[in-house]
Amino acid sequence: MAAIRSEMSLELLALHASASFPGANSMNFLNEVANHFPDAISFAAGRPFEGFFDIQSVHGYLATYREHLLTKSGYDEATVLRTLMQYGRTKGIIHDLIAAHLDIDENITVDPESIVVTVGCQEAMFLTLRALRRTADDVVLAVLPGYVGFAGAAQLADMTVLGVKDSTAGIDLDDLLVVLDRAEAAGRKPRACYVTPDFANPTGISFSVQTRNQLLRIAEEHDFLILEDNPYGMFYGDNGYLPTLKALDRTQRVVYLGSFAKTGFPGARVGYVVADQRVHTGGEHTELLADQLAKIKSMLTVNTSPIAQAIIGGKLLQNGGSVRLASVRERQIYQNNLHRILTGLATRFPPGTVPSVSWNTPTGGFFLVLTVPFTVDDDLLTISALEHGVLWTPLHYFYGDGLPRNRLRLSFSHLTPDEIDTGLDRLAAFVRKYSV
Amino acid sequence: MAAIRSEMSLELLALHASASFPGANSMNFLNEVANHFPDAISFAAGRPFEGFFDIQSVHGYLATYREHLLTKSGYDEATVLRTLMQYGRTKGIIHDLIAAHLDIDENITVDPESIVVTVGCQEAMFLTLRALRRTADDVVLAVLPGYVGFAGAAQLADMTVLGVKDSTAGIDLDDLLVVLDRAEAAGRKPRACYVTPDFANPTGISFSVQTRNQLLRIAEEHDFLILEDNPYGMFYGDNGYLPTLKALDRTQRVVYLGSFAKTGFPGARVGYVVADQRVHTGGEHTELLADQLAKIKSMLTVNTSPIAQAIIGGKLLQNGGSVRLASVRERQIYQNNLHRILTGLATRFPPGTVPSVSWNTPTGGFFLVLTVPFTVDDDLLTISALEHGVLWTPLHYFYGDGLPRNRLRLSFSHLTPDEIDTGLDRLAAFVRKYSV
Repeated sequence: MAAIRSEMSLELLALHASASFPGANSMNFLNEVANHFPDAISFAAGRPFEGFFDIQSVHGYLATYREHLLTKSGYDEATVLRTLMQYGRTKGIIHDLIAAHLDIDENITVDPESIVVTVGCQEAMFLTLRALRRTADDVVLAVLPGYVGFAGAAQLADMTVLGVKDSTAGIDLDDLLVVLDRAEAAGRKPRACYVTPDFANPTGISFSVQTRNQLLRIAEEHDFLILEDNPYGMFYGDNGYLPTLKALDRTQRVVYLGSFAKTGFPGARVGYVVADQRVHTGGEHTELLADQLAKIKSMLTVNTSPIAQAIIGGKLLQNGGSVRLASVRERQIYQNNLHRILTGLATRFPPGTVPSVSWNTPTGGFFLVLTVPFTVDDDLLTISALEHGVLWTPLHYFYGDGLPRNRLRLSFSHLTPDEIDTGLDRLAAFVRKYSV
Repeated sequence: MAAIRSEMSLELLALHASASFPGANSMNFLNEVANHFPDAISFAAGRPFEGFFDIQSVHGYLATYREHLLTKSGYDEATVLRTLMQYGRTKGIIHDLIAAHLDIDENITVDPESIVVTVGCQEAMFLTLRALRRTADDVVLAVLPGYVGFAGAAQLADMTVLGVKDSTAGIDLDDLLVVLDRAEAAGRKPRACYVTPDFANPTGISFSVQTRNQLLRIAEEHDFLILEDNPYGMFYGDNGYLPTLKALDRTQRVVYLGSFAKTGFPGARVGYVVADQRVHTGGEHTELLADQLAKIKSMLTVNTSPIAQAIIGGKLLQNGGSVRLASVRERQIYQNNLHRILTGLATRFPPGTVPSVSWNTPTGGFFLVLTVPFTVDDDLLTISALEHGVLWTPLHYFYGDGLPRNRLRLSFSHLTPDEIDTGLDRLAAFVRKYSV
């Protein structure tokens, strides 16, 4: 007779809270609905346009970067192979190209040594939060509604997120001051405030230059860092673009979080963080915050795949170091889609008619927010997919509190004009049906 | 007059403890010494052999995997591009190929759904530890001396590591029981024990089959998981290889941590974790531990670069799914180097002569340990590099306690036979000088 063995069994409640993070469950639910209704038109996915994806370009970028190492860096063949294939520099190998891009495109001047190339911007967020969370009193502020992945990264680092209200300006600075005061009064230490000043996810709103400068001043006065996330800044409108917080920053208040998921492609998984703050390590000695993040990264992912970095590096090289230049075609697509969806909404919901539906009018980016005369939740999303063949994202996903609201996010980045038109027809039918 | 701005300034002690992790500092020190003395022969770096690195093979692997998606998976061109370049499945895209490899090479049969493809094995360690650390009472056990990166990942997850003594068997099972009892008496919950049963880093020791089975039984009796790390198992000796713990496991006690850094190449940054344990999520409902790890990964790195996965996938496909077959050349190199260093040590330190130097005799892997009649620390390492042109790793790095010991690790994986001979001459001169 075989011995009875005790089968391993675990309890979800005995695992870290991040395994139960509502944001991850929301995203899983959304993916499941999308998989169940493959013919539904999706205003839900925040994915970049796929029409320019091309695997030969990937091979070409890698070859270009390899050639760059041989000619410009003067490496011999063995050193090139070691750079691309062996264990390597924790902070990455395309930091110089990223610094050049920031200078060319964003008027941001930074020492390449202050850049850590990361596994997408998501890892950059976690590294920064992990570094800043020393004790349970260390908290981070974030505009709500906001990017779900930021709240997820904070949860992974056991760091409490204090929500700051948004406004038509992108952030309610009065509320920021209230939240800061309340936190400080409770003995908590606000270490940083996370913002997306350009075409935020989910609202599409951008901060004015005045708001940017005011936020920088508040950060100085209250001694916290600003975590500036900028995945959509290259997809600006005809009236141009505004300076990033990092470009306006004169006192190293801003940790800049960069992504190549939308300007390169998501599958490269290459992002970065600019962390040029000085860290006192004892006596008069200081090191860069980037070097502290690199120490943490060495225990998390060792380094970012140099092959993936080389692919992004090759794209930068083929465009004279300019992401702006590399993104001309994509920007045009996103701008056309934005105009199409704004025009399409105005046609389907004329002012003064019933139902009363409104939306904001971003000048760029991937997203806008629609306000409808009823609350939207997961059940209604399922019905929308099943009965109307259209998907969107309930806004409560971006608050993380599970409370249904009468707003939803529409993403227009990966659709064709025809899909936008048909999707809006379906959306309008859905909205009319539930606006009773 | 310009306003006086307050420059940002941070204190290391106000950052998370992982930024001060001694292991990361040790590795940085080692890298600095290596950079200062580029002509020194290094027995320190645990890097794979570079002689077979070839960028054309990288292009070829990617093309093979793409062809596989078109023909075997039956994807159209757009779906292939989406799979390789867009955001994608959190658990990865080469899980089926990894499951096939485990079946072919390791006699491990697992559902591909229980595999999460990770950014190197390092991310797999962090994901697993993050999931298992719910409260400060949750602790993990690990054989010391052991892989520094494991202690680093535990530090990142705020998880205490309790050291278990090693022995000539690779692990002291009596001490394991003592540590378990002591932890449980103190109200702590040992969630897992981390081991490298095949050619461990730093000792090169492998567990016998009896030890493997005993460890599995103890894990069942004391209800903890075994985290089995297996980066070197493919580099076995002429007397063959032993079954992994996962192959012997009948009760899902083992979480298997896999790496392609040594069998593929480090720059791909592709590893994986097999987590086929059931997690009770409420009522009768269960999910795989792999799915919990995937939720955490979605907030950490989103997914592992599908381009990097495709490169490893292509290598697997070109070798009929067998890593063993793909690693024939490398195994021969490492075996030759192992025999060369063992013979070379015996020639330079004959039995019964002064100084009294000894070493263990692994049958495979990358490492062995040399015992010398004096303690070795960072200062002596610098002197060894400066005066003798040879590098090695003080064993205290693998204890993490900073206490110098009279043992050092010799890595022979990335050297040529001539470098081994010259390096041993230098090492012998160094050892003789300090054996007074």
